[in-house]
Amino acid sequence: MTLDTTFLTESLGDGQVTTGQDALEEHATDWGTATGTEPEAVVYPTTTEEVATVLEAANERGIPVTPYAAGTGLEGNAVPAEGGISMDLTRMNEVLDVRPEDFQIDLQPGVMGPTIEETAGEHGLFFPPLPSSGDISTIGGMIANAASGMQTVKYGEVADWVLELEVVLADGSVITAGSKAVKTSSGYNLRDLLIGSEGTLGVVTRATLELAGRPEQIKGGRALFPDLDHAAAAVTDAIQSGVDVAKIELIDEESAMMSNAYTGADLPDSPMVFLEFHANHGIDEEIEFCRSILETHDLIEFEIADEERMGDLWQARKDLAFAVRSYDPDRQPLHPGDITVPISKYGDLVKEIKDLGEQYDLLTPCFGHAGDGNIHYTVLVDTDDEEQLRRGEQLYSEVVDRAIEVGGTATGEHGIGQGKRKYLLDEHGSETVAAMRSIKDALDPNGILNPGKIFPETE
Amino acid sequence: MTLDTTFLTESLGDGQVTTGQDALEEHATDWGTATGTEPEAVVYPTTTEEVATVLEAANERGIPVTPYAAGTGLEGNAVPAEGGISMDLTRMNEVLDVRPEDFQIDLQPGVMGPTIEETAGEHGLFFPPLPSSGDISTIGGMIANAASGMQTVKYGEVADWVLELEVVLADGSVITAGSKAVKTSSGYNLRDLLIGSEGTLGVVTRATLELAGRPEQIKGGRALFPDLDHAAAAVTDAIQSGVDVAKIELIDEESAMMSNAYTGADLPDSPMVFLEFHANHGIDEEIEFCRSILETHDLIEFEIADEERMGDLWQARKDLAFAVRSYDPDRQPLHPGDITVPISKYGDLVKEIKDLGEQYDLLTPCFGHAGDGNIHYTVLVDTDDEEQLRRGEQLYSEVVDRAIEVGGTATGEHGIGQGKRKYLLDEHGSETVAAMRSIKDALDPNGILNPGKIFPETE
Ligand SMILES: Cc1cc2nc3c(=O)[nH]c(=O)nc-3n(C[C@H](O)[C@H](O)[C@H](O)COP(=O)(O)OP(=O)(O)OC[C@H]3O[C@@H](n4cnc5c(N)ncnc54)[C@H](O)[C@@H]3O)c2cc1C
Ligand SMILES: Cc1cc2nc3c(=O)[nH]c(=O)nc-3n(C[C@H](O)[C@H](O)[C@H](O)COP(=O)(O)OP(=O)(O)OC[C@H]3O[C@@H](n4cnc5c(N)ncnc54)[C@H](O)[C@@H]3O)c2cc1C
Repeated sequence: MTLDTTFLTESLGDGQVTTGQDALEEHATDWGTATGTEPEAVVYPTTTEEVATVLEAANERGIPVTPYAAGTGLEGNAVPAEGGISMDLTRMNEVLDVRPEDFQIDLQPGVMGPTIEETAGEHGLFFPPLPSSGDISTIGGMIANAASGMQTVKYGEVADWVLELEVVLADGSVITAGSKAVKTSSGYNLRDLLIGSEGTLGVVTRATLELAGRPEQIKGGRALFPDLDHAAAAVTDAIQSGVDVAKIELIDEESAMMSNAYTGADLPDSPMVFLEFHANHGIDEEIEFCRSILETHDLIEFEIADEERMGDLWQARKDLAFAVRSYDPDRQPLHPGDITVPISKYGDLVKEIKDLGEQYDLLTPCFGHAGDGNIHYTVLVDTDDEEQLRRGEQLYSEVVDRAIEVGGTATGEHGIGQGKRKYLLDEHGSETVAAMRSIKDALDPNGILNPGKIFPETE
Repeated sequence: MTLDTTFLTESLGDGQVTTGQDALEEHATDWGTATGTEPEAVVYPTTTEEVATVLEAANERGIPVTPYAAGTGLEGNAVPAEGGISMDLTRMNEVLDVRPEDFQIDLQPGVMGPTIEETAGEHGLFFPPLPSSGDISTIGGMIANAASGMQTVKYGEVADWVLELEVVLADGSVITAGSKAVKTSSGYNLRDLLIGSEGTLGVVTRATLELAGRPEQIKGGRALFPDLDHAAAAVTDAIQSGVDVAKIELIDEESAMMSNAYTGADLPDSPMVFLEFHANHGIDEEIEFCRSILETHDLIEFEIADEERMGDLWQARKDLAFAVRSYDPDRQPLHPGDITVPISKYGDLVKEIKDLGEQYDLLTPCFGHAGDGNIHYTVLVDTDDEEQLRRGEQLYSEVVDRAIEVGGTATGEHGIGQGKRKYLLDEHGSETVAAMRSIKDALDPNGILNPGKIFPETE
């Protein structure tokens, strides 16, 4: 079956609709391992009206539409599961307005992290919750996946910095969710319902974000520990003691080793914690307070780095996802793990992953936004080896099960997409999933928006 | 028509169902001026199961159920609009668990502010976003109204501190929304949809809150200005300059005068700003920074108060709603105003209210969480004087219209309830309201939960 694209070419301009094989292939993958289908056409809207026109027409015809932005999602979130139209939003990439007097910026959804940072920076402001992939992903994708980042431990997640959204619903109606007032109790909070809905409830066409003033003082550094247990316990203790960190990232030995291999970095051969502090006053006192806590966990070395050195360290951290993926052509990552647990359970989970890695004889590099209780664990397997694949899947799932058991979540920030659908019921239970489904059916009765995502095959 | 309560008495225990006139009357009012109907029966569940049983049975019979907690709402939010059952949740008032190692507390919905503070305090923790009415309202009511408070300017609103909710839906199904992990991207964010839904989508039966560590340093004080324009400009400038305040509340001359009359306080006869600072280090530097900004706005006096004196000031601020109401038996408040606007529009709106007050010759005391752009303005009128009432309504509405015009909201924190239904469409537009309605219909198809609220009569 091929899609008759006349209704698209009629309402969009030249070069805004394609069925070219390259484009179809490009829009059939993201950064994860989930495999879906190719779209039958790709559209590139540039205005809200165009998004609305396409959705209205597709809705009438029952044709699936999957929003696609930078494709850095890790769970096949933007990969069509049922063909149809891939709606590429990267051409909607304009900064619409900046209101530094209100700490606000209005963006089209395709604007990427560097543009946000640059524009905010011109006014002495910044956007605190950018994900590690902020350099290569769009604000629309961040919103749709409910992204968070290294600074979430201090500043909260992307959702906390979204004030207002313009969203086109499946039938082409255009709604405004939220408010430019920083606080509102007016009507239902559609904004936070739409955030994290992975393009299954609507297409974000404009976002008003809040920005923050830059802190006067920024310092960062690195702490080394003899083993992972001590490193994890140190992070936990720092958080529980209320240390005011802006970033606190754990990196295990395997990750450090892979990072060295990938970037030629010179990370030492031990588990470590990268830290950053932001303050207007008293940053050194806070760092000393932090050090005093880390010291009770057999701290080997605590180094406050200068800015350049720090930049290198954070780059190494940001590159970890790439490093892990490139480590060994014969051992590819299964779905990237993204569990998040209450902080008191953090050490247990890290230990469990490493123990399982030993038991199943598989590499399981771990890193993540430790302060939030987030662990990005990756299971590396030879995908040609059926038996190893099975062991890998087993390990991967046991960790998710354990995270859910202790009150955590299957996905802290990457979303369910296609890859984690099987955990939705385990995490939320059937009555909660039924409530989610009823909302999906209410807002998208024909099921055209990004079908085959989030919900398990049988609910 | 009287309600046959047999189905209630059959499933609830002794003393958990009443049709006594006192109880019906008590549950037919709240702290606002909106008038609804009396319920036909009041039920007092003590467990989630009892809530579920009542809802399931009422849903089958099409009987309205309106959740009622401490009744401090200001928009008739908890006052039945169509009779039926008032579900009083104040007997579900137990602290279920405290996990200081995770900064978490699990509460039944009827727990009130002082219990939260006391329990958290035992572990050196506190719950930052309590509303000014925190002493007399429940966590269920705070969640349902999406409450915020004086410390929201620094710490965010109640919603930001809710991790997980157990909620009973209209059909009696029990869902869990959110996660005990501090960050999740798993499935739809039902938690934040339910927060602020004013009991129209479900009944909260358990809440897991996040708590914060107490700051090492707390100092507060008071700043006096020659007139309201200068006071409002000073607040705006402080916020725009990124001063790290924990509270920043504006009080106009009329409010100060009424406060003095009510409590015998000795507030001076000029507009003033109450401030509080929280820090672990460098609080004095921050206060000096703040003072240097206020000084550019004709600051008359800036007084850092000792703890006792500060306590008195904050009590005077908390009592303002009462003071305004009791000022003159012949002049009663119209619906308490609760507009919130982007901070750059704050001074304009304050000025506009006072100008309109003069123009219409009505008292309009203003106070509020100035740092959030929130203004609680009250229009005092002789309710027996039809013409004055009309003028008052006119003034009240013009202010809301203006707030919406500049990107603000009709209600920063009190909710829509009955009193602000007429503004919903103006603020959100018909397509957005239609989306809200479709969610209401999906989760509560028989429309039994708190009918007659939020949505305007004609959408
Ligand atoms: C190296 C690496 C590091 C990462 N680190 C992080 C991290 O620290 N934190 C984190 O949260 N994530 C992280 N991710 C995951 C991913 O980058 C983020 O979720 C990112 O926000 C996705 O943005 P995108 O533009 O690539 O969206 P895409 O991948 O193109 O799309 C993601 C989802 O959003 C939907 N979508 C996109 N645009 C819109 C729109 N305008 N309206 C509605 N729906 C839309 C798509 O349908 C899809 O469901 C990382 C990924 C990589 C590869
Ligand atoms: C003096 C004064 C000062 C105030 N200051 C503030 C302030 O600073 N900030 C602020 O936000 N508000 C303020 N308010 C408004 C009000 O006190 C708050 O909204 C408060 O949170 C309401 O709580 P309550 O327990 O009294 O709820 P109620 O008034 O009993 O109910 C409020 C709403 O919540 C619903 N509800 C109650 N419990 C549940 C439940 N368990 N599940 C589902 N729905 C439920 C009701 O149906 C109703 O719609 C103030 C009020 C007064 C009188």
